[in-house]
Amino acid sequence: MEMISKSMQALLSQNSVIRAMFEEGERLRGEYGSDKVYDFSLGNPNVPAPAEVEQAIREVLAEEPSVSVHGYMNNAGFADLRTAIADSLQERFGLAYRADQLIMTTGAAAALNILLKTVLNPGDEVLTFAPYFSEYKNYVQNYGGVLRLVATDPETFLPDLDALRKAIGEKTRALILNTPNNPSGVVYSEEVLRGIQGVLAEKEREFGSCILVISDEPYRELVYDGAMVPWIPALMPHAAVVYSYSKTLSLPGERIGWLLLPDSIPEARELYAAAVIANRISGFVNAPSLIQRVLKRTLGCRADFSVYEHNRALLLRELPKMGYRLVKPEGAFYLLIQAPEGDDAAFAATLKEERILTVPCKSFACPGYVRLAYCVAETTVRNALPGFRRTAESYKAKGLL
Amino acid sequence: MEMISKSMQALLSQNSVIRAMFEEGERLRGEYGSDKVYDFSLGNPNVPAPAEVEQAIREVLAEEPSVSVHGYMNNAGFADLRTAIADSLQERFGLAYRADQLIMTTGAAAALNILLKTVLNPGDEVLTFAPYFSEYKNYVQNYGGVLRLVATDPETFLPDLDALRKAIGEKTRALILNTPNNPSGVVYSEEVLRGIQGVLAEKEREFGSCILVISDEPYRELVYDGAMVPWIPALMPHAAVVYSYSKTLSLPGERIGWLLLPDSIPEARELYAAAVIANRISGFVNAPSLIQRVLKRTLGCRADFSVYEHNRALLLRELPKMGYRLVKPEGAFYLLIQAPEGDDAAFAATLKEERILTVPCKSFACPGYVRLAYCVAETTVRNALPGFRRTAESYKAKGLL
Repeated sequence: MEMISKSMQALLSQNSVIRAMFEEGERLRGEYGSDKVYDFSLGNPNVPAPAEVEQAIREVLAEEPSVSVHGYMNNAGFADLRTAIADSLQERFGLAYRADQLIMTTGAAAALNILLKTVLNPGDEVLTFAPYFSEYKNYVQNYGGVLRLVATDPETFLPDLDALRKAIGEKTRALILNTPNNPSGVVYSEEVLRGIQGVLAEKEREFGSCILVISDEPYRELVYDGAMVPWIPALMPHAAVVYSYSKTLSLPGERIGWLLLPDSIPEARELYAAAVIANRISGFVNAPSLIQRVLKRTLGCRADFSVYEHNRALLLRELPKMGYRLVKPEGAFYLLIQAPEGDDAAFAATLKEERILTVPCKSFACPGYVRLAYCVAETTVRNALPGFRRTAESYKAKGLL
Repeated sequence: MEMISKSMQALLSQNSVIRAMFEEGERLRGEYGSDKVYDFSLGNPNVPAPAEVEQAIREVLAEEPSVSVHGYMNNAGFADLRTAIADSLQERFGLAYRADQLIMTTGAAAALNILLKTVLNPGDEVLTFAPYFSEYKNYVQNYGGVLRLVATDPETFLPDLDALRKAIGEKTRALILNTPNNPSGVVYSEEVLRGIQGVLAEKEREFGSCILVISDEPYRELVYDGAMVPWIPALMPHAAVVYSYSKTLSLPGERIGWLLLPDSIPEARELYAAAVIANRISGFVNAPSLIQRVLKRTLGCRADFSVYEHNRALLLRELPKMGYRLVKPEGAFYLLIQAPEGDDAAFAATLKEERILTVPCKSFACPGYVRLAYCVAETTVRNALPGFRRTAESYKAKGLL
C-alpha cells in the first residue's frame, strides 16, 4: 500500500528539482562563505517591517484584552478591521466597499485557495498569462481545475488579446491577473486592462458565462518611476481582488492579507458566504488574530522600499551595458534576463559558476529567461556585478552576446 | 451559469442552520442583555493567555531582528523551535524525536488538512468514533475522502471494538482519534487504546494495509481529577499526532500548532516531505512567524484552567441533582446532557426558552444529547442554574425526568 496520495506523489518528484537548487546554494555558501554567494533566487523581502508595526504590537498588548487579541472572531476576520480596510479602499479608489465584502485571510495564497475552492468544479479551466507565478498551477489543481496559460507579447510580456480570445471556451471559469507581475515586473496599464475586459465581455456574451477575474495584487504598492497600478474592479465588473501585506509591510512570515468580493460580481452575497465557509473548512479558520489587530493600527504604513529602488536602478544601468537583454520592470522586485544562448537552465548554470544564483524561467512558463529577485542587500548586487561582467564577456567571446 | 462550486453549494445550505442558531443568540442578547443569555454553544476559550506569552512577545521584538521575526522560513517552520518541541516531547514521553519529524502548522485544523491531503486518494475511507468533531467530515471531503463513523458504547462513549472491526475494509486509509474528546469530554485509557491497536493490527494483516492513526490532541493538557492522556505513538506505531496551542496557551485566534510524523510510520521521510509541500500549496505556506518565535520562549507554559475546573465541578454537582443524566467528562471543556424527551433539538429549544444556548448533538452524530461548552465565566454557569432547574421541573411534571 502506498502511503502518499497520487496527486502528492507527482508534486513530490517535481519538488526535488527545487530542493536540489536550494541545496546547491547551501553547498556554495558552506564552501565560499555566504557573502561570496549572490543569491537572487528567492522572493523573500529583506527589509524590516516599518517601525509602526512593532509600536502597534506593543500598543495592542497594552490596550486591548488578551481574550480578544488572541481569541476567535468571525471566520471573516475582525469586523472593525474590515470596515477600516473598506473605508481605505474607498478613499484610495473612489468606489464604496463594506466590511461584509472583505474576508481577512492567512495571506494571499490562502485567499486564492479559498476563492478557487469556492468557484471551481472539477474540470473547470482557469486562465492566466505567461510568464506566471508557478504556484497558481498547484492552487488550481487543488480543486480539480486545469490552469491554461495564455501567451503574452514576447518583447513586452503584455497580454496577447488574440491568444486570450482563443483560449476562452465553455469551461473557462476564471482568469487570474497578476500586475505588477511575478516574475516579469510588468505593470498592466488601464488601456491593457480595458482590452482584456473587452475580450472577456465578448466571450461572456458568446457563452452566456461569467468569467471571474481574480486580481492577485501582492506587489500593488511596489512600483517605480511613478508607475500607476489601476484599480481593477473599476474596470472589470466581475473582478475579485486578492491582497497581501507580505511586501507592503514586509511581513511575509505572518501570513496576512484579504479577499474582496465586490457587489458587481453575480451572486456576490452567496459567493461571500461560501468563501467564509471555505476559509473555515480548509483549515485556515481565521487569519491570525494579533496581526489583524496590528493591521488596524498600521493601515497606510509602508516598509522602506528604497533598497529595491537602488538595486533596480543599478541592475537596469549596469546589465544592459554588459550586453544583456532585459525586460524593464515597472513593479515588484523581479527582473528577467534573456539567456544569451537561449537556454535558461544553461544560463543559470553559467551564472552559478560565478556564484550568482537565479531561477531558470521554464518553471514560470518563460523559457529562455532567468529571474533575478533583487530583494537583497545592495552590496549583494554590487558584488555580483563583476561576475555578471565576466559571464557576459565569455558569451561575447563565443559570439552569443 | 452558477457562480458557486457544487461542493460548496451543499455546504452553504447546511451552514444556514448554524447561522440561524447564532442569529437567534444575537437576537436574545439584544432583547434581554448579554448577561441574561447563558451561551454554552461555542468552544471559545474565555481565559486570557498566560502572562509569559505577552512577555515573550515583548522579548522577541526587543531581541530578534525584524526580518527574521516576520520573515519567511522553511515551510516546516523555524528549525530551532521544532528542535525545542522535539526535545520537550522526548522529555515528557520518553521517545526520541527530531525537528525533521515536525511541521509547524496554522493550528490543528491546518495540520489535519495537510495530512489528509497528503494521504487520501478520492474514495478512500477515514474512520472516526461518534460522537465526533463535525469539521472532520468537511476536512475528509476536501480531498475526496469519505468519513465513516464508528459507534461507541451508548453509556460511556468509549470505542466499540466490534464496530471498529466491522468498519475497517480495503478502502480504510486512516482513523482519526480525538481524546480528550470533543464533544463528550471522554478520555481513552491506555487499555482502550491497546484494544484499538489490536483491531488495527489484525485488520492491517488481513488487508495488507497501513491504517494511519491521526491523533488530534488539542485538549491534551485540559484534563481533570488527575486523568492521564496516554502518548499515542508509544502504543500505536502508525500514529501521527496533531496538536494545537489554542487551548493550552488560550491562543485560538493565532492559529498555531504542529504535525508530528514519527519514524515508525511506513515511508515516514517521504510522507514528511510531501506534507511540507501540502502545507505550502494549500496556501498556508508556513505557520505565522512571530507566534512561532514566541512559542520557542513559552513551551511548557499553560493558561489558567481553574475556571473550567470550577464550572465543571459546579455542573457535575448541580445538574444530576435536578435529575439530568450526564456523561461525566474527564477532559476538554464540554459536557453532554441527555435530552429527557430523547430529542436533542426539542431539548435545546426548551432550554432556549430559559435563554440557555446549547448545541443539539445530532450534528456530532450523537442524537439525543445536547452539548454544553463550559469555557464561560463562572457567573454564567451560576446564573443559568435556575433555568436548568425550572426546565427539569417542567420535564418532571410531564413524567419525562
